[in-house]
Amino acid sequence: MRDVPTTAPVVVDAMGGDHGPAEIVRGAVQARREHGVPVVLTGRAGVVRAELARLGAVGEIDVAHADDVVPMTERGAGAVRMAHSSLAVGLGLVRDGAGAAFVSAGSTGAVAACATDRLGPAPAVLRPALAVALPTTAGGATVLIDAGATVDPTPEMLAQFALLGASYAQLVLGVADPRVGLLSIGAEPGKGNRLTRRAETLLRDLPLRFHGPVEGGDVLTGVADVIVTDGFTGNVVLKNVEGTVRATLALLATEVGTGAGAGVGAVDGAGAGAGVGAGVGTQDVAGPEALRRVAGRYDPETHGGAALLGLTGTVVVAHGSSRARTIARACVVAHDLARGEVVARLGDRLAVRPAR
Amino acid sequence: MRDVPTTAPVVVDAMGGDHGPAEIVRGAVQARREHGVPVVLTGRAGVVRAELARLGAVGEIDVAHADDVVPMTERGAGAVRMAHSSLAVGLGLVRDGAGAAFVSAGSTGAVAACATDRLGPAPAVLRPALAVALPTTAGGATVLIDAGATVDPTPEMLAQFALLGASYAQLVLGVADPRVGLLSIGAEPGKGNRLTRRAETLLRDLPLRFHGPVEGGDVLTGVADVIVTDGFTGNVVLKNVEGTVRATLALLATEVGTGAGAGVGAVDGAGAGAGVGAGVGTQDVAGPEALRRVAGRYDPETHGGAALLGLTGTVVVAHGSSRARTIARACVVAHDLARGEVVARLGDRLAVRPAR
Repeated sequence: MRDVPTTAPVVVDAMGGDHGPAEIVRGAVQARREHGVPVVLTGRAGVVRAELARLGAVGEIDVAHADDVVPMTERGAGAVRMAHSSLAVGLGLVRDGAGAAFVSAGSTGAVAACATDRLGPAPAVLRPALAVALPTTAGGATVLIDAGATVDPTPEMLAQFALLGASYAQLVLGVADPRVGLLSIGAEPGKGNRLTRRAETLLRDLPLRFHGPVEGGDVLTGVADVIVTDGFTGNVVLKNVEGTVRATLALLATEVGTGAGAGVGAVDGAGAGAGVGAGVGTQDVAGPEALRRVAGRYDPETHGGAALLGLTGTVVVAHGSSRARTIARACVVAHDLARGEVVARLGDRLAVRPAR
Repeated sequence: MRDVPTTAPVVVDAMGGDHGPAEIVRGAVQARREHGVPVVLTGRAGVVRAELARLGAVGEIDVAHADDVVPMTERGAGAVRMAHSSLAVGLGLVRDGAGAAFVSAGSTGAVAACATDRLGPAPAVLRPALAVALPTTAGGATVLIDAGATVDPTPEMLAQFALLGASYAQLVLGVADPRVGLLSIGAEPGKGNRLTRRAETLLRDLPLRFHGPVEGGDVLTGVADVIVTDGFTGNVVLKNVEGTVRATLALLATEVGTGAGAGVGAVDGAGAGAGVGAGVGTQDVAGPEALRRVAGRYDPETHGGAALLGLTGTVVVAHGSSRARTIARACVVAHDLARGEVVARLGDRLAVRPAR
C-alpha cells in the first residue's frame, strides 16, 4: 500500500447517492465534527460550497471541483470513461497520495469499476474483494467477502479474500482472532464445487483461524466472523438476504391482514413450522415499529458500508439511499481501514501458494 | 424416459425421514385413499406391515422388503454402497419398470447420489437437477433449479435445467407458459460470471419464455416462474432463504422482547428502513400465530418436495421432518411428474447447441 500519512483526509464523493449532495455534505461535516475524521469533498464546487454554507462549514472542509456526475443507473464501464466525474477526481486524489481513502454513495458497480481502474491492485494482491458486514442473530456481525467485485476468482484469490476479510473484521469490528468460514454446501469431504474444494485445502494452510465450510443457512447466525465466497455467489447471497427479509415481513403483514395461512404452490403443504419462531411468547406481539426496526437492520442503507479491499487505497461504498449518519459512519470506517493498512499488515502472508 | 404404464405405482421409501415409518406409511395410505395414487412401500416388511395394520390397510398396499436403512446422517457415497437399503430396493423397482416414481424423506444427498447411480440420466439429458418450489410474496411459487444436484454444470447443462424447470412448472404448478429467469448479479450486458454469460446466449435461443437475468433479491418476488442456476449457488440460496426467514423472525422476537433496536457491527447505522414493511398498518400487530405461519411457509418441511429431474425415472425428495400430509403431497407430485413424463415431452428440444 502506498505511503500515505495517517493524517491524510478521507475523500468523500459529494455527488453520489439518492440524497446527495445535501445529505452527503452533512455526513462529511458530522464525520469531521463528531468523530475527528479529516475529510475533503469532491463534486461541483458551487453546489457543495452552498451546502457547506448552510451548515456554517465553509473553510472547514476543502472541496475538489469535478465537472461531471456519474448517474446512479451507471453500473460499470460507462463510469470508467468519465474522466472528470466526482468519482474520477476523488479516486485521483487517493491515487496521488492526497487522500487516505475514498467514500462514495454512488452505484457499487460504478465505484468498484472506477476504483479498480484508477487505483489498481495493491502489491501481492491478485484481485480486489468487496466486504460487507451483516448483523447476526447472535448480536454481532459477519463479514461477507467477496460480495461482488471478482465474479470468477481462482482458489488463490479466495484464500486472499479470507486474509483481507479477517483483517477487516479485526480493524472494523474489533474481533481479535476472527473465525473464517468458507461458504459451501455441506461439511463432508468432497462436498462443494471445484473452486471451494481447492480453496479449502489452501485455507487450511493459512495463518488464520479457519472454521471450515459453512452453508447458506449460516450467513446470519454468527457461526463465523468472516464468510468467504466468490463475488458471484456473494452478490447473490447479499441480495437474497435483503429480499428474503423484505419478503418475510411482507408475508407477515399479509398474515396480520387476512389471518389466513393458505399454502401456495402444489408442493406446498400446511406444516406447522414448529420450532421456528418459538422464542416468541404467547402474549407477545410484533407491532409495526418492531417490523420496521428489523427491516432497517437488513435494509441496504443500514449495513451501510461495503469496503472494496485489496486496492492501492481504501474504498468504502455506502448505499445509494444513505443519509448523513450513514455517510459519517462510512467515513469513520474508511479512516480506520486506511490507518490500519489492511493489505500492508498482511505482508508475506498474502503470498498464497498455488492450489494443488 | 423408459416405457412405464401410467398406472405403475409410486414407490415410497418407508424408512426415510425423522418420523418414519409411522408417518411415511400414514402418508402413503392417504395418497392412495384420498388422492387415488397407487403406491408401494419399501422397507423392513415386518415394521411396515405393523404400521399398515394399525391403519387397517394390510393388503391394500404392497410392501417390498429391504433389510437395511440408510441413516439420515449419510449424505452421499456411503448410501450408494448399501445394496440392500430401502433406497436401493425402491430405486431398483423404478429402474426395472415396476414403479413409476420414487418418493423418499431420506437425506437429500443420499437420495440424489443413489438415484443418479441406479437410474442414470435420461436419454439426451446431460446431468440431473433438483427442482424446489418456493412460495412467493406474489401468492404463487417460483421453481428454483438446480438446488444442489450438479454443482459444476456447463452452460449447456444450465440450458437443459431451464427446460426441465419449465416442464416442472407446467406439470406441477399448472403454469401454462412459465417465465424463466437466469440467476445472476445484474441485467446489464457483460454482468454475471463466465457460466451465466455463456448460458444466457443459449437461453435466448431456446423455445421457452426467457425473462432474462434475475438477482438474488428476486427469488421470492414471483418475477419469474422458474429461476435457473448451478447446483452450488442454488443450494446456497435455498438454505439462505430458510436461514434468513428464521433470522428475521428471531430478530422480531427479540425486538418484541426488548423494544430496543440497537445496531450491531461497526458499519451498522441506525437507519429507519423506511419503505420496507410499510404494508403494515399502524394498528396492526403480528402475533405469535402469524409468525409461526410465516415460518411454516419457508420451513423446509412445508415446501415439502424437491424433485430430482432428468433421470430415467422421477424422484421426489421430501424433507426429513415430513409428516403424513407432506408425504401424501409428495406422492401426488411424483405421480403427476411420472404421468407427464418431464423428459420425454421435451423431446428434441433437449438437444441444446453448445455455447459459443
